[in-house]
Amino acid sequence: MPSPTATLLVSCPDQRGLVAKIASFIYANGGNIIHADQHTDFTAGLFLTRIEWQLEGFNLPRELIGPAFNAIAQPLQANWQLLFSDTVPRIAIWVSRQDHCLFDLILRQKAGELNAEIPLIISNHEELGAIARQFNIDFHHIPIAKDTKAAQEAKQLELLRQYQIDLVILAKYMQILSSEFIAHFPQVINIHHSFLPAFAGANPYQRAYERGVKIIGATAHYVTADLDEGPIIEQDVVRVSHRDDVTDLIRKGKDLERIVLARAVRLHLQNRVLVYGNRTVVFA
Amino acid sequence: MPSPTATLLVSCPDQRGLVAKIASFIYANGGNIIHADQHTDFTAGLFLTRIEWQLEGFNLPRELIGPAFNAIAQPLQANWQLLFSDTVPRIAIWVSRQDHCLFDLILRQKAGELNAEIPLIISNHEELGAIARQFNIDFHHIPIAKDTKAAQEAKQLELLRQYQIDLVILAKYMQILSSEFIAHFPQVINIHHSFLPAFAGANPYQRAYERGVKIIGATAHYVTADLDEGPIIEQDVVRVSHRDDVTDLIRKGKDLERIVLARAVRLHLQNRVLVYGNRTVVFA
Amino acid sequence: MPSPTATLLVSCPDQRGLVAKIASFIYANGGNIIHADQHTDFTAGLFLTRIEWQLEGFNLPRELIGPAFNAIAQPLQANWQLLFSDTVPRIAIWVSRQDHCLFDLILRQKAGELNAEIPLIISNHEELGAIARQFNIDFHHIPIAKDTKAAQEAKQLELLRQYQIDLVILAKYMQILSSEFIAHFPQVINIHHSFLPAFAGANPYQRAYERGVKIIGATAHYVTADLDEGPIIEQDVVRVSHRDDVTDLIRKGKDLERIVLARAVRLHLQNRVLVYGNRTVVFA
Amino acid sequence: MPSPTATLLVSCPDQRGLVAKIASFIYANGGNIIHADQHTDFTAGLFLTRIEWQLEGFNLPRELIGPAFNAIAQPLQANWQLLFSDTVPRIAIWVSRQDHCLFDLILRQKAGELNAEIPLIISNHEELGAIARQFNIDFHHIPIAKDTKAAQEAKQLELLRQYQIDLVILAKYMQILSSEFIAHFPQVINIHHSFLPAFAGANPYQRAYERGVKIIGATAHYVTADLDEGPIIEQDVVRVSHRDDVTDLIRKGKDLERIVLARAVRLHLQNRVLVYGNRTVVFA
Repeated sequence: MPSPTATLLVSCPDQRGLVAKIASFIYANGGNIIHADQHTDFTAGLFLTRIEWQLEGFNLPRELIGPAFNAIAQPLQANWQLLFSDTVPRIAIWVSRQDHCLFDLILRQKAGELNAEIPLIISNHEELGAIARQFNIDFHHIPIAKDTKAAQEAKQLELLRQYQIDLVILAKYMQILSSEFIAHFPQVINIHHSFLPAFAGANPYQRAYERGVKIIGATAHYVTADLDEGPIIEQDVVRVSHRDDVTDLIRKGKDLERIVLARAVRLHLQNRVLVYGNRTVVFA
Repeated sequence: MPSPTATLLVSCPDQRGLVAKIASFIYANGGNIIHADQHTDFTAGLFLTRIEWQLEGFNLPRELIGPAFNAIAQPLQANWQLLFSDTVPRIAIWVSRQDHCLFDLILRQKAGELNAEIPLIISNHEELGAIARQFNIDFHHIPIAKDTKAAQEAKQLELLRQYQIDLVILAKYMQILSSEFIAHFPQVINIHHSFLPAFAGANPYQRAYERGVKIIGATAHYVTADLDEGPIIEQDVVRVSHRDDVTDLIRKGKDLERIVLARAVRLHLQNRVLVYGNRTVVFA
Repeated sequence: MPSPTATLLVSCPDQRGLVAKIASFIYANGGNIIHADQHTDFTAGLFLTRIEWQLEGFNLPRELIGPAFNAIAQPLQANWQLLFSDTVPRIAIWVSRQDHCLFDLILRQKAGELNAEIPLIISNHEELGAIARQFNIDFHHIPIAKDTKAAQEAKQLELLRQYQIDLVILAKYMQILSSEFIAHFPQVINIHHSFLPAFAGANPYQRAYERGVKIIGATAHYVTADLDEGPIIEQDVVRVSHRDDVTDLIRKGKDLERIVLARAVRLHLQNRVLVYGNRTVVFA
Repeated sequence: MPSPTATLLVSCPDQRGLVAKIASFIYANGGNIIHADQHTDFTAGLFLTRIEWQLEGFNLPRELIGPAFNAIAQPLQANWQLLFSDTVPRIAIWVSRQDHCLFDLILRQKAGELNAEIPLIISNHEELGAIARQFNIDFHHIPIAKDTKAAQEAKQLELLRQYQIDLVILAKYMQILSSEFIAHFPQVINIHHSFLPAFAGANPYQRAYERGVKIIGATAHYVTADLDEGPIIEQDVVRVSHRDDVTDLIRKGKDLERIVLARAVRLHLQNRVLVYGNRTVVFA
């Protein structure tokens, strides 16, 4: 692991001098930029950038970087986030009965691929509690029924607060979050087992089989109040043929789901994803 | 080019002895099988097969193969087609203003990749007539307006009959064929510029851009009365990123459209595609 | 799981009537074929086929199928194997220090994707013993040094015999098997972390980085006396860019290694792979 | 086409303030940056960047931009190139007997995908002269024999000078350029019909078939004195199976060659490729 870095994610109306102003701010304070990328959406008139620099040798103390940058950002009408690489985010993984994404995320975290802690697993079923115990992660079983949903979501939110969770990953969690929940806790990544917008909603593999597609996909996206309509972070696909029945699609899809979700989570944890409108810019 | 072959495409209710009966029929008449593939759809209870054998040394004269096989096929309630590799199908390519698929198909046919003749190009615009002339292919300009459509489709059908066309390829033909047309001439392959069923209908690249997908696709399918709902022959995809605007999607998509359409046409011309329900079996 | 099936894998000099003879043998004994595929290599003059049929309702008792088929196979000079789907092969996984392929294979086996038992893990290091214990699999630590290699391979062979192992999977086992070992136990699948024949041998990711390739790959192959030269079962690739250093190549490669090895093992366990010369036919 | 832009490609030893200095230079002169990307190779201690800005409203006249930037670049020990989007490069396409890449490049240029002129085609055979005439491009037939090679390369160089060629594209030109030629004219892109470094040299498809690979590839690279060893710009792959003989590999490969070469040429013409050592940075 190299020395800690700071990352600025900035979006603002496009105008002259943005790169110069931001880069000069870092240079003037002695920072060594190790990654800088930008994108201009000319249709939206929007400039977006990600700049990462080493904190070693940077003259501003951490607590002053934000206020100092804000003086630059305000006249630009910029939205911005400041993140430090040694602040390790805390993840809650939510699952139902399928374990493949859960195992995958835990093993990647242990292998050092994901810069995060995983202190909490929540499930609407009991089956996967054994995996949680195997890896010493707290497991909370919160079953959901139509009439208990609001109350159970309150419990879930309470757990997220209690465990100081920064990010929820729906790793094949087969319940829909209410828009109230999303309003309270908007940092949620979901894996959908289709190539969105194809086969949004329930039973995508069955429907893909019935439509006779030759390729299936998976999509990782931020969750919004509109089911399966949130900003897409990553997608991938795999070929299928007439020899593949629904069971084969599900099996092949599991490999896709694992990889697409893991890539999206990693990109998010590296602060490489900016959302604007219903789109993402991924500074990979 | 090897010596001519015969190909049987057969589908029938699944039952014991199908492979043995069909293979024995060919062997008993001295045929050398060079390709045999089969598929059983257990859900549909359907058996489908493709068998190709060399005509050299086959004891039945061509005109008797069909009647002889029919005696086997009838008790099996089989649908079947018999095709000879030296019967060269005749293709009509239909276009509007975009030339990339047209050029691609013509050049592949000249390069020997497509076992077909291309005597006819039909367009609702005049622009691509120059390409037709360049390659000595007859070009008919048949503009379509709402109130002339029925009459113009009658002209189109007359041309197909006159030119003895076996297959129509919609190579970016931006008009919808009426269900009456399809009823009269059902052998039509279309290229749709999206990963169906995502973005069926108009302006798929614009809509893909707006949805913020990370992958775009193209789909070649047989045309049915339901727009963009016909049996899919082939699909492929390419990655896009936030840097790609709609123009880039269109440019990247053109490569996909060319390749996906060409593959589908080649598979069809090699008699490798069987349709049942709204699905295809592709014996590639 | 459907009722048990028998599978014949046959290769013989190409000649007329092969499909008919084999299919008729099964039909005559009341078998219902559920998969039949064939391939003719015209250059090699070789016919290869895979036929699978349901044992339920088949009139020959299991122990007579082989002898009965042999009467057909001998005049055809055919090599053949007969396999029953309810005979579950026993796998030994060999590893060194990396755990990603080991975890992946164990989890897939538990999920029912691999029709096999895994009673034995062998390693030249001790680290992965904890994983073996976690899943209740016997673990044997057999360190290899230059002067102990012959003796240690004898121990390994003894373990394979004792555990009645059918297949060895080198799941990132960083030692080379001697040709003597292969002569005694030829059923070995290896995962090589490059797109063979590029970067055969040591340190493929380092060398891929130095060459500046834009795509990296992984290759699963049967092990022969020639290092990294055995028949290839499966390969896949992933894009890399100038932003990926060697560490990134290794991380991205791990996903490839997992998937390519798992696919190859599954194909092998389903008896879908025929080897001839240094090539495989994969009846997928 | 938007208004003209200037692009700076810069590489220099890594040090603090590079982004700030370059961006400030453009901002100070009133430039509006529309693309900025950078990469640091920490192993090589090298910083590389591409910055593109609109010339409209830029206060420095064109002829002064270079000298002004040089004052910044010299103390940084930077290598740099300055390019204007309305300076249209002139391409010579070199071919032998295969026409698919030639057709592809010409059609893309006519479709506006390649910002270049194609005034010259050179071939060591006569066959493709007809295509040159069809598109009104000058064609020079320069046959190569062992003892005439040096003299013929002199003629080729004279033609490149005469036609003021900026870039040579070897679009399936089946001759090796001498290192003397490369020394005189180093801007050459070649398409090699394999996934380099696999199957460098002659007959890659035949050798890929013999090795039994499951995937084939194509590689576009800058030509250096070492055959097939130059910096790679782009690669792509396609799946093959045991059903594909060498002829099929060649046919499938042609699609790869077209697309990989076209992508590489487009990236080069957009000044998105920086070479250092034997590697490329592609600011796509």
